[in-house]
Amino acid sequence: MDARDLRGVVPYLPSPLTPEGEVDRPALARLCHHLIEQGVHGLTPLGSTGEFAYLTFHQKKAVVETVVEAAAGRIPVIAGVAATTTAGAVHQARRWADLGADGILAILEAYFPVPDQGVIDYFTAIADATDLPVTLYTNPNFQRADLTLPAIATLADHPNIAFLKDASTNTGRLLTVLNTVGDRIGVFAASSHITAAVMLIGGRGWLAGPSCLIPRQSVELYDLCRTGDWDAAMALQRDLWHINQAFAKYNLAAAIKAGLQLQGFDCGDPAPPQAGLTEPQRDDLKQALEAVGAL
Amino acid sequence: MDARDLRGVVPYLPSPLTPEGEVDRPALARLCHHLIEQGVHGLTPLGSTGEFAYLTFHQKKAVVETVVEAAAGRIPVIAGVAATTTAGAVHQARRWADLGADGILAILEAYFPVPDQGVIDYFTAIADATDLPVTLYTNPNFQRADLTLPAIATLADHPNIAFLKDASTNTGRLLTVLNTVGDRIGVFAASSHITAAVMLIGGRGWLAGPSCLIPRQSVELYDLCRTGDWDAAMALQRDLWHINQAFAKYNLAAAIKAGLQLQGFDCGDPAPPQAGLTEPQRDDLKQALEAVGAL
Amino acid sequence: MDARDLRGVVPYLPSPLTPEGEVDRPALARLCHHLIEQGVHGLTPLGSTGEFAYLTFHQKKAVVETVVEAAAGRIPVIAGVAATTTAGAVHQARRWADLGADGILAILEAYFPVPDQGVIDYFTAIADATDLPVTLYTNPNFQRADLTLPAIATLADHPNIAFLKDASTNTGRLLTVLNTVGDRIGVFAASSHITAAVMLIGGRGWLAGPSCLIPRQSVELYDLCRTGDWDAAMALQRDLWHINQAFAKYNLAAAIKAGLQLQGFDCGDPAPPQAGLTEPQRDDLKQALEAVGAL
Amino acid sequence: MDARDLRGVVPYLPSPLTPEGEVDRPALARLCHHLIEQGVHGLTPLGSTGEFAYLTFHQKKAVVETVVEAAAGRIPVIAGVAATTTAGAVHQARRWADLGADGILAILEAYFPVPDQGVIDYFTAIADATDLPVTLYTNPNFQRADLTLPAIATLADHPNIAFLKDASTNTGRLLTVLNTVGDRIGVFAASSHITAAVMLIGGRGWLAGPSCLIPRQSVELYDLCRTGDWDAAMALQRDLWHINQAFAKYNLAAAIKAGLQLQGFDCGDPAPPQAGLTEPQRDDLKQALEAVGAL
Repeated sequence: MDARDLRGVVPYLPSPLTPEGEVDRPALARLCHHLIEQGVHGLTPLGSTGEFAYLTFHQKKAVVETVVEAAAGRIPVIAGVAATTTAGAVHQARRWADLGADGILAILEAYFPVPDQGVIDYFTAIADATDLPVTLYTNPNFQRADLTLPAIATLADHPNIAFLKDASTNTGRLLTVLNTVGDRIGVFAASSHITAAVMLIGGRGWLAGPSCLIPRQSVELYDLCRTGDWDAAMALQRDLWHINQAFAKYNLAAAIKAGLQLQGFDCGDPAPPQAGLTEPQRDDLKQALEAVGAL
Repeated sequence: MDARDLRGVVPYLPSPLTPEGEVDRPALARLCHHLIEQGVHGLTPLGSTGEFAYLTFHQKKAVVETVVEAAAGRIPVIAGVAATTTAGAVHQARRWADLGADGILAILEAYFPVPDQGVIDYFTAIADATDLPVTLYTNPNFQRADLTLPAIATLADHPNIAFLKDASTNTGRLLTVLNTVGDRIGVFAASSHITAAVMLIGGRGWLAGPSCLIPRQSVELYDLCRTGDWDAAMALQRDLWHINQAFAKYNLAAAIKAGLQLQGFDCGDPAPPQAGLTEPQRDDLKQALEAVGAL
Repeated sequence: MDARDLRGVVPYLPSPLTPEGEVDRPALARLCHHLIEQGVHGLTPLGSTGEFAYLTFHQKKAVVETVVEAAAGRIPVIAGVAATTTAGAVHQARRWADLGADGILAILEAYFPVPDQGVIDYFTAIADATDLPVTLYTNPNFQRADLTLPAIATLADHPNIAFLKDASTNTGRLLTVLNTVGDRIGVFAASSHITAAVMLIGGRGWLAGPSCLIPRQSVELYDLCRTGDWDAAMALQRDLWHINQAFAKYNLAAAIKAGLQLQGFDCGDPAPPQAGLTEPQRDDLKQALEAVGAL
Repeated sequence: MDARDLRGVVPYLPSPLTPEGEVDRPALARLCHHLIEQGVHGLTPLGSTGEFAYLTFHQKKAVVETVVEAAAGRIPVIAGVAATTTAGAVHQARRWADLGADGILAILEAYFPVPDQGVIDYFTAIADATDLPVTLYTNPNFQRADLTLPAIATLADHPNIAFLKDASTNTGRLLTVLNTVGDRIGVFAASSHITAAVMLIGGRGWLAGPSCLIPRQSVELYDLCRTGDWDAAMALQRDLWHINQAFAKYNLAAAIKAGLQLQGFDCGDPAPPQAGLTEPQRDDLKQALEAVGAL
């Protein structure tokens, strides 16, 4: 699939680290092969679940290399670019393109507030840096700079800016975006949205961490939505939502790594001072996974 | 329809005031007759759009009397009860029951933060005060006290607590509520949610201000959702959402009163220091109404 | 003292209620006499600590009457006016003036956000309503509408707007206000500020709940600040701050009522669903009071 | 002065960058010499004003090297350590110690929320990493993780944790910290506090950006506070506060760099997508500097 036609289930990959802090390339590659076999439509290294905010450039590079190599062209790899400076973001985008990424997930980190013009300049520079299609990422919960509607409308005119992934909990905002610039950019959901609802309003799929744990079920849900079998879709969605409910309670990286460990994929713990899930938290997640047949 | 079986489109009524600050009973009654003729399924006086926070008890009483009289048993009247004190809320609930209301919309106002136990005590006292079914109202945007999931779960056990209306923008939270206590309480959307999406996940309808301006179209959307014609529902929903987009920008009471004036229902302006819409804002709303055939 | 020359320690009075919800006039009068004997410089009924947000107009009227009668002209009574509507605020201001209040503490309650012009209109209407000097109250923690610097600067030109009481925790903001409009309005601190620090930067005193519990010590602190004995002032301030630390943890009305009960003034509990302090909380407050010789 | 006895005026240095993004070592060294000649008591590279969040490790290293070399042991250099990971922070702390820094300013960056134990672990690891005294930095405005009082109390027991710099606007919180752990750690103000007020309550001085622009006046204010000449101190403080008022309006790094340029120190602009001050903003700052004789 061409990354400009991206649709479907695109798991947010974790970044497995060894106790020494090296990227555990075999563990990551094994997970990628597994997800592709389960039918997912793309892979996203270095999203929030992938701890982009906790990795060095060296570690990030190892992650992208490993995922591109494991995907081997079977499905698109949408690599995360995240920085506080325009220069840093452009540097990452070019390197990920050189490494063979098929698309860019663009994230703005900030310490001081950034006015709209700065936000537009930042994302435009990333879009100019390579020929890859860019997915804008917005998350008002964890970030100091958000994408306003006027900024999104301006950015949507850029030929390389193709998608938006919204990680707020405000599903109505996605319909507003679609009503405003839906002719120019496609919209993806995050784990904070009900994915069936986002499909209903015209979304293309979702970029989300939980899909690492329930790839087969996610693809099934996607197919039910695509064929318009909404009753069956909602029956499945209701069950899968228990996973999202669990994720909403915990550190995303800790939850994904704990869940994968329960499934036999040892990805280590998130980088300290983040902590892994406690035993009661693991039990809670375990129950949610068992209930949907994911254990 | 029995208020315990409430479903469908339930407009949040404005509270028309004369320049002297008296409730304009004829204007309110005329609006109620119009909405019932358009097919709405219930009426809610004294919601947020109805400026409950800006009216005296005397004014509130005149509003409830007028709406009950105008409805004349044709459709249920769900009257808003809102106070900072338990005593004040219980007093309102009993009076609205005496006046003939069919249900209670229960709202907690607060100045100091209220812990969960206080929230539970408050809503329980309202539910105990009459035999009417109670709809819990939660709006984290405008209120200092919110309903947590554990509080909702406790309250759902009360035989008179029948529904929840959520005025956050977080649609996923509604599915979490349905997954948790959906066997005991029904869920209604607000104008901040995409109503088709809330119907998809199992909602019963919506209590919202915009339905005063687009009652016929709202009922049509509800019917399409109920029959599972999701393609047609979304085509209509996309158009109607422009009204919600306009409402999200302005003071709700000012927007509803300006829109009704454009439609020939003179409801005055919201109570000062709230201001009516400016001319450019009225034009913006006018365009949105024209686009959906509501002018 | 003329209320236009107000300076010093002005306790925020509680509103004692009987179990039946009536204002306990004898208890309130007794407290007023006690505070005046301890040397405080003014009395403020119906501030936040006085539960203005939890009382009916009838209860508020009884509070103001009782305090004016007890003060008997010995010290000024600055009565709280708080409403969501301009009409309601003007009504209160006129009635409090008729009852003999010497000044107005003006508070804007709001449900929907209020733009600057609405804020200015509201406070101007109160200032126009009587001849009494008005103290603007601002509290960004508990209120939805705040006073911006431009709004304060505009309001400071009104001949009846004499003072500002700031209940934020941002002491620097008070110096900004003094630097900007200090020639036109005087500034009072709240219990969230270090009163000695506010005196240092040019404040006139404080309107605060804790002064009900430590009136003698508060007057002593005020006198030390006024005479410039800053070493002695800070030694006392450090001790008294433990009371503010306790108040910062609890519902203000519950804390003041519990503290007064420990001192032999039975003021009942705050209006439900607010709760009185728990036993461990009372013990915590008791220790703080004992440490400053207030028990 | 031993860094464990740190007191007084410690400017937060900017990080001058060339258009190519290299650290402008001569410009930074020249500024350091100037500030030392004006009598400041310490230098802090890599604070918030120093754009720690916008620099690569390579750039940070060049900044610390330059400042240590310029200070040449005349006054202590307190170098900023800021990371999302414990490993990254420990690495920085050790390198800055190797380069000759006299103390560490420890900052926790975060993407996901960090519970108290994670916060304690992070700062403890930094304190364990070298023999240098550590200043804890807390800024609830710009950071996702804040230091709670219990966390501060625990950390205060570490022999290398010597100071706290609070960049909130809540001055009362500093007195609470001093009342609680003032026997174990000293407290410094930020530009958001009135420094004379913080000196009054027992502070040791301030770590702040504006002191780069008004070093002589800052030292004069510090000396007036130290000798207890509070009338003269406040007269000066009132004037200097206009600088803080200007800083509160703009991006801190842009403001400091624009002000230094007006004084003849060319430090370039902040790293994009941050923008330099606009002409009207520069004029505003210019007026504030002229008013205090700093131009």
